[in-house]
Amino acid sequence: MTAFPTKVRIVEMGARDGLQNEKAVSTKDKITLINALSDAGLKDIEAGAFVSPKWVPQMADSADVIKALDLPHVNLSALTPNLKGAQAALDAGVKEFAIFTAASESFCQKNINCSIDESIERFSEVMAFAKANNIRVRGYVSCIAGCPYEGNIAPQKVLEVTQKLLALGCYEVSLGDTVGVGTASKITEVISLLLQHIDKTKLAVHFHDTYGQALTNIYSALSLGIATVDAAVAGLGGCPYAKGASGNVATEDVVYLLNGLGIEHGIDLERLSNAGWQITQALGKAPVSKVAIALHNTQK
Amino acid sequence: MTAFPTKVRIVEMGARDGLQNEKAVSTKDKITLINALSDAGLKDIEAGAFVSPKWVPQMADSADVIKALDLPHVNLSALTPNLKGAQAALDAGVKEFAIFTAASESFCQKNINCSIDESIERFSEVMAFAKANNIRVRGYVSCIAGCPYEGNIAPQKVLEVTQKLLALGCYEVSLGDTVGVGTASKITEVISLLLQHIDKTKLAVHFHDTYGQALTNIYSALSLGIATVDAAVAGLGGCPYAKGASGNVATEDVVYLLNGLGIEHGIDLERLSNAGWQITQALGKAPVSKVAIALHNTQK
Repeated sequence: MTAFPTKVRIVEMGARDGLQNEKAVSTKDKITLINALSDAGLKDIEAGAFVSPKWVPQMADSADVIKALDLPHVNLSALTPNLKGAQAALDAGVKEFAIFTAASESFCQKNINCSIDESIERFSEVMAFAKANNIRVRGYVSCIAGCPYEGNIAPQKVLEVTQKLLALGCYEVSLGDTVGVGTASKITEVISLLLQHIDKTKLAVHFHDTYGQALTNIYSALSLGIATVDAAVAGLGGCPYAKGASGNVATEDVVYLLNGLGIEHGIDLERLSNAGWQITQALGKAPVSKVAIALHNTQK
Repeated sequence: MTAFPTKVRIVEMGARDGLQNEKAVSTKDKITLINALSDAGLKDIEAGAFVSPKWVPQMADSADVIKALDLPHVNLSALTPNLKGAQAALDAGVKEFAIFTAASESFCQKNINCSIDESIERFSEVMAFAKANNIRVRGYVSCIAGCPYEGNIAPQKVLEVTQKLLALGCYEVSLGDTVGVGTASKITEVISLLLQHIDKTKLAVHFHDTYGQALTNIYSALSLGIATVDAAVAGLGGCPYAKGASGNVATEDVVYLLNGLGIEHGIDLERLSNAGWQITQALGKAPVSKVAIALHNTQK
């Protein structure tokens, strides 16, 4: 049963989940990137993380980045794991908060040092603060298709954690295959179960391309009606806690797929690709996007 | 309507379509590669091309490579565009011939200097020679999803050319998205049309990953019941006639997908990945396979 959406919303992860897992670039480079992404038509951009710079030094300048942006039509979001981060994010001008937990107890312990339930409990004050300030909150669940420590993750566990985040007040939950081990059948299984209990408009997918499966997994999710897709320009990033993990699925490759499927997205592929080349030049590497490389070659 | 096959036959392209489009490696490296591919469980290996060394210097030693192999259980095939090539291939010990044309007139002209119909006519004597020697012949149709010169290619054209190759006596036709421009909807459209007229056991898919779509396109083809997939270890190769083209889809990534889908294939992924690392070392590069890189990282 296929029910592709007519329109997809892409949530751009490059400046946060991407750059968080690359070597540090300057504040100016980040501002240039986010402005270029906005120019390319992206309306949802995760712009930083308000976490301890001891954990994630690459995100230490998130407040400076966001304060320097003047993008009234863009939904700028940031990771806000606690009240201190949420307050700083609000002060900087963030329009949306993001909180994260995992569908794997071991991953949650190793990544954020607490159980899944504790992680959700801890978010209560961020949620209350967000509500008081009329800020919406997005939830992330990692390891929905597998965990580097536990291996297989039961779809039922993903459902439970997702429902808890929605009950807490998240407007949407993004389902992360953090280690990129999922294939189309596993993704179909997990999402099909969730859709029996949760409206599809409350779900997004967030797939890493470690095993080259991300785009096929996104295609599977789209075929089930999922209409929000996380992606990072130039395939930036990865996961330092997950052995062997490479980056996010490249936004350019997702846009190319959507073009082929005739699904609306509002993004200019050439501008997007140029934004990716610009930031990867700052990083001293080439985009991890086949589309970006192919477009570059044909423009030569 | 999904009808995934329970078993898939992978036709390994690395030693031919792959190495044909990489810088030259030694005859010994090719022999090592093909033996390693056989050790990994591959039963269908395209081992060389009997074409003019002026056109394709990388394949000049195909006879030496094939003569040096002792793989009675492997179906070793080679490109044989004319009678001279077919004779040389037979002498070397090739068990299957392969002939190629395109679904695009312009591509056919630029690539093999004749019209599609002329290209098929020219194969008559190769076919007669094959029949007389009890050798089966595989057909390739390139540009099934688009052409670098003509842009869109009508599915009806792909059907006509495929039917002509089957009528000529090919036991199977491999449908090539040579320039990798196809996305899942286009692939689904083309294959769905062909399946109205041709039995699925006579069709294979051959997708290049220029725009990162190959695996998703293979997934689409599998969902329609296609059970033969061409792939090249380490994503070797490309197409020198197609601007911006990168390599074949990586066999490792296809095998990972099949594992996830629970589809039988008979290939040992670790051995396959090692074969890819070995040949890419000889080429002075890393495999263009996310799976090969991820496995390598996790083994560190």
